[in-house]
Amino acid sequence: MGGDFGPEVTIPASLECLRANPDLNLILVGDEAILKQSLAQTLNDFQSRLSIVHASERVEMDDSPSKALKNKKDSSMRVAINLVKEGRADACVSAGNTGALMATAKFVLKMIPGVDRPAIISTLPSIYGHTHVLDLGANVDCAAEHLFQFAIMGAELVKAVENVENPTVGLLNIGEEEVKGNEQVKAAAQLLKESGLNYIGYVEGNSLNAGHVKVDLIVADGFVGNVALKSIEGAAKMFSSVLKEAFSKNLLTKLVAVLAYPILKSFKQRLDPRLYNGASFLGLRGLVIKSHGGADVLAFRTAIELAEVEIAHDVIRKISEKVEATLANRENT
Amino acid sequence: MGGDFGPEVTIPASLECLRANPDLNLILVGDEAILKQSLAQTLNDFQSRLSIVHASERVEMDDSPSKALKNKKDSSMRVAINLVKEGRADACVSAGNTGALMATAKFVLKMIPGVDRPAIISTLPSIYGHTHVLDLGANVDCAAEHLFQFAIMGAELVKAVENVENPTVGLLNIGEEEVKGNEQVKAAAQLLKESGLNYIGYVEGNSLNAGHVKVDLIVADGFVGNVALKSIEGAAKMFSSVLKEAFSKNLLTKLVAVLAYPILKSFKQRLDPRLYNGASFLGLRGLVIKSHGGADVLAFRTAIELAEVEIAHDVIRKISEKVEATLANRENT
Repeated sequence: MGGDFGPEVTIPASLECLRANPDLNLILVGDEAILKQSLAQTLNDFQSRLSIVHASERVEMDDSPSKALKNKKDSSMRVAINLVKEGRADACVSAGNTGALMATAKFVLKMIPGVDRPAIISTLPSIYGHTHVLDLGANVDCAAEHLFQFAIMGAELVKAVENVENPTVGLLNIGEEEVKGNEQVKAAAQLLKESGLNYIGYVEGNSLNAGHVKVDLIVADGFVGNVALKSIEGAAKMFSSVLKEAFSKNLLTKLVAVLAYPILKSFKQRLDPRLYNGASFLGLRGLVIKSHGGADVLAFRTAIELAEVEIAHDVIRKISEKVEATLANRENT
Repeated sequence: MGGDFGPEVTIPASLECLRANPDLNLILVGDEAILKQSLAQTLNDFQSRLSIVHASERVEMDDSPSKALKNKKDSSMRVAINLVKEGRADACVSAGNTGALMATAKFVLKMIPGVDRPAIISTLPSIYGHTHVLDLGANVDCAAEHLFQFAIMGAELVKAVENVENPTVGLLNIGEEEVKGNEQVKAAAQLLKESGLNYIGYVEGNSLNAGHVKVDLIVADGFVGNVALKSIEGAAKMFSSVLKEAFSKNLLTKLVAVLAYPILKSFKQRLDPRLYNGASFLGLRGLVIKSHGGADVLAFRTAIELAEVEIAHDVIRKISEKVEATLANRENT
């Protein structure tokens, strides 16, 4: 029900995913009457692979997390997360209110023992392919220990979904030299050096998209990570807008634009933010994926596919085991 | 002498500026023998408008700020800042080591009374023209009071150089809602609401280049500001690289690239980072402009021109007066 468009987007995206993956089962959670009406005949097309679970309420985009948690116990968000908790679903995908989704997920699913705080991880395009980055906004202030835990969890996710043995991990900072940064970052660097992770040191903001070396995972506190992510979104918007302007200046440039259309289209596709939609909440005992609220069908489909990939690679179990092993290791030393 | 290229870049840029502005006087500070040799005949062309002041040492890019300050008292950087202190120069422009430049400037010029910390301000291109942003890395941890002071100083600079009465000021945060952000940002918002500035509230990272409204000045702590700036640099690099790739895929796309060349060139020029080179240190009793270390002739020329603009608008005096008036106001209430 969530996001800026609700079932208008989530239903077509769901149907596309069902068509693309014959092993996928989807449960649509929300107002049964609305969902049934939107689905019409299609509900039967997929038989048992597509079902509806009714939820009488919905969390609005401006509901506070605590209000959603306390007053909307039958919201589509809450019911969907309950399905994960009960083992009836392997993941919950939502385009709804991020704060409410995080609070509800944390309350219902609980944290993996040893993890202090959940973090939000997603991928960004880069000149090397793409980069995973966390935290993207769940935590506005992070101690070194939190950054360390984010790195442990994030590296495990990257290992699983990218099938790389030893992903490189960088710590987001304002310079690469040892002396740079605030106390939390410096202390986190110390923890990461001793972590057994493939820690490559400090990286700067440009490493998210185009650093001088490929970095598989970049770790930051949620304030910095969120600002970096949105700064890149703004830069992308400006670039597209200025490029469009240059090609629509006059009749001649418009003519060239027609010729350049397939090239510009391939350029746009390579960096299409919809193909990077979907952020995972890490640190919880269950998989929850947050889609951008403004996601269209393609973007929401990407978020569902992200859930499929993480389920296939058993990411939550692997992270839980890694966290347990890491904490056991630390207690022994 | 500073930056990645030294006099090879700084001298041609200086000569171009002298040619462009007949009212400009430049003093080149550095190794006299090297400078004289590089200048050859040109030294006489500009007569009294171009002179050399000898400095026997130079700060290296990897010198620590304290080392530069203690052990290199005759560095080109130090001597140039001394000229500002003594009133023999209106500004110092350097492409050298940022940390050393800041430490030396602070030590020699001293702070404007009432300002706790210097900040680094620069401009970024935006869909509305451009945005001023500070702090870009001088301060890794900022209290609300520091952010408030940055806003006061930055707004005064924008007023002076843009000739706008009441520049809009936004505070960089991870959301626009009141509840968002860390304690420092929330407390700074309170101070800004009562500041008399045209404070428009929280803005997100995308507002640097392409927010939903124009913001004249964006205030952030130096860690966040620096990461945002460099994230945008990385995004720009990725965009250019992917665009170039798309146009050089095969013979046909290369042919279209030839046709599109003037369009792509105008696109590139509009966002050319060299035209945004130059960051001002605010809070000091004298004007110091930091150029990117990797600046080429055009970029370094932009940094010199920035100094010309700020001198012409008497920015340092205006900031000093504003700071004094603001502090007096606060003491009276």
